[in-house]
Amino acid sequence: MLRPDPQMYMRMALRLARRGEGNISPNPMVGAVIVKNGKVVGKGYHKYFGGPHAEVEAIKNAGVKAKGATLFVTLEPCSHFGKTPPCTQAIIKAGIKKVVAATFDPNPLNRGKAFEILKEAGIDTEVGVLEEEAKKVNQYFFKYISTKIPYVTVKAATSLDGKIATFKGESKWITSERSRRWGKKLRDKVDAILVGINTVMKDDPELLPLKNKKRYLRVVLDTHLKIPLGAKILEQQSNFPTLIFTGSHTGIDKMKVLTEKGVGVKIVEEKEGRVNLGKVLQELGKMEIASLLVEGGGEVIASFIKENQVDELFLFLSPCIIGGKEAPTWVEGEGFCLLKDATKVKIESIRRVGEDVLLRGKVLSI
Amino acid sequence: MLRPDPQMYMRMALRLARRGEGNISPNPMVGAVIVKNGKVVGKGYHKYFGGPHAEVEAIKNAGVKAKGATLFVTLEPCSHFGKTPPCTQAIIKAGIKKVVAATFDPNPLNRGKAFEILKEAGIDTEVGVLEEEAKKVNQYFFKYISTKIPYVTVKAATSLDGKIATFKGESKWITSERSRRWGKKLRDKVDAILVGINTVMKDDPELLPLKNKKRYLRVVLDTHLKIPLGAKILEQQSNFPTLIFTGSHTGIDKMKVLTEKGVGVKIVEEKEGRVNLGKVLQELGKMEIASLLVEGGGEVIASFIKENQVDELFLFLSPCIIGGKEAPTWVEGEGFCLLKDATKVKIESIRRVGEDVLLRGKVLSI
Repeated sequence: MLRPDPQMYMRMALRLARRGEGNISPNPMVGAVIVKNGKVVGKGYHKYFGGPHAEVEAIKNAGVKAKGATLFVTLEPCSHFGKTPPCTQAIIKAGIKKVVAATFDPNPLNRGKAFEILKEAGIDTEVGVLEEEAKKVNQYFFKYISTKIPYVTVKAATSLDGKIATFKGESKWITSERSRRWGKKLRDKVDAILVGINTVMKDDPELLPLKNKKRYLRVVLDTHLKIPLGAKILEQQSNFPTLIFTGSHTGIDKMKVLTEKGVGVKIVEEKEGRVNLGKVLQELGKMEIASLLVEGGGEVIASFIKENQVDELFLFLSPCIIGGKEAPTWVEGEGFCLLKDATKVKIESIRRVGEDVLLRGKVLSI
Repeated sequence: MLRPDPQMYMRMALRLARRGEGNISPNPMVGAVIVKNGKVVGKGYHKYFGGPHAEVEAIKNAGVKAKGATLFVTLEPCSHFGKTPPCTQAIIKAGIKKVVAATFDPNPLNRGKAFEILKEAGIDTEVGVLEEEAKKVNQYFFKYISTKIPYVTVKAATSLDGKIATFKGESKWITSERSRRWGKKLRDKVDAILVGINTVMKDDPELLPLKNKKRYLRVVLDTHLKIPLGAKILEQQSNFPTLIFTGSHTGIDKMKVLTEKGVGVKIVEEKEGRVNLGKVLQELGKMEIASLLVEGGGEVIASFIKENQVDELFLFLSPCIIGGKEAPTWVEGEGFCLLKDATKVKIESIRRVGEDVLLRGKVLSI
């Protein structure tokens, strides 16, 4: 018999993990595969927030065959009572002989604990198989759990010269329908979407997903609470609640009207005349928002860039040239004074989406 | 014997043609291959401006074997006395049996004439093998010969947000050294390079090639003749002469000083307060400048875009974000008012140059 390839089983477990995408945040996506005598005898993944963990699903799926088998799991099993009993207990009870995990639990309180418990119970353990891939699958979770603020993705759609509208303000549409559909799919993956008040005033976006298949929070940064009461983003509050962050000098009457409509309004400190972005992210973190998609406009994106709060970038480039000294670009604000301070991006992929080009990159932290 | 593949021989002829690049403008690059009984018996290409034509070189190379052979040539042979005797005459004299050409001569005065002469002499003719490729090899020539104005390539190096400097004006360097070397190689392929006076004032560029292997013209658009007499672009006039286009309200004294330095100064009409771009291109055309590389800055590129005078674009994108409402982008000016009027580009290739990304595209005419 060929020695079973741990990477092959871990890859299978990672594929299973991804099936939970969009349904379990702020919990991590986890997949598990149980292998005995070179055969897969059980599979499971974390299906929905609060639901049974991947390990438990796989053990249930394997039944008695779990005894003496090896469990491949994409993340260190849990060892504490949370929404479900600890997985370590289920693993020991099922008679699993060996546990192979891709990564440790990023939560410093739990890191390595499960392996100690399993070892004490006489179970072999191994960590680090396809570690990078596993971290990537749960990049939102890994950032959120260690910083308590959401993973921030910026999406922008621009002409080849960086413009998001003509000097007269026409912005619909720069990129193709295909790119816009692609861009909307990003909304399915995150816990919240954020825009600035200028985008609400100019474009009046709904910020809804392609299909009504998920709940998420819609967030508006609106220092002076200028939002028009008829804005589309204030509709459909049952599935897509809206939360407005506003500054401290805000009229109480308008807040009351908005609250009565079911819209959330939160006052946060100001910084240089705008709502303090760091505070906004902390507040979102407290609400268990593990991932945030920033959809513009140029001033809001510039604030995120300046505060070094962007993790990832999706840049859709339309093959057109708009021109204009006064035409807005996708990163406005004051900008960096010196080139050495410019935000660096590691471009991870370049692909064509119809006639457009999509650049995807990770923002390198300073 | 296998039937000889005309495309294979034409491809060989096109490869030969390209060897003349940079040395023969405004003449076209031409390659020729002579084939007899499925064997290549002669090769030639147009090596330098005023030198023997490809057909003549190939016939000379084939010697007596040219008799009864087939000539593959990338462009319709010449049929008139120019700097050399007509190639049709040499072909007939050599006893060539058949002539296969990739394209007709784009000059309406000559189009098809050679084939008539050859047919009258009893020689078989065929046109259209790898026509698109042959037109692409001589794209500068094809545009120039039919419009009498140069083929215009715009090169820009920008951050991901379209900026070519910080708001404070720092611009050295946005892209990597590798991209800049790549960009400089474009200079070897053209007859002239153009920048605006702002670029001269801010960056004081030399606009010299990577290696001193070619002559070309350096052109500055300078409506008010503001150029500093110590500008680097005014040096090295022997191999890289400089020509300044200026408006009609220009001080005669400064013109005199420049002319004494060996710098060319040409007065052209103004249009909306700037030198008229159409006139500039016509003047360059009269000087047999068949290809022009526009290297910025944003105002000059915007004028070319607005006047619909750009044929091709080389856009180097550096993986950084500069930001800033006031930071200059690579296309300034007023810009288009409506999105439907924005200049469309067909992106022909996307490649990485080190950490940067190079987008290469053809500008679609309106």
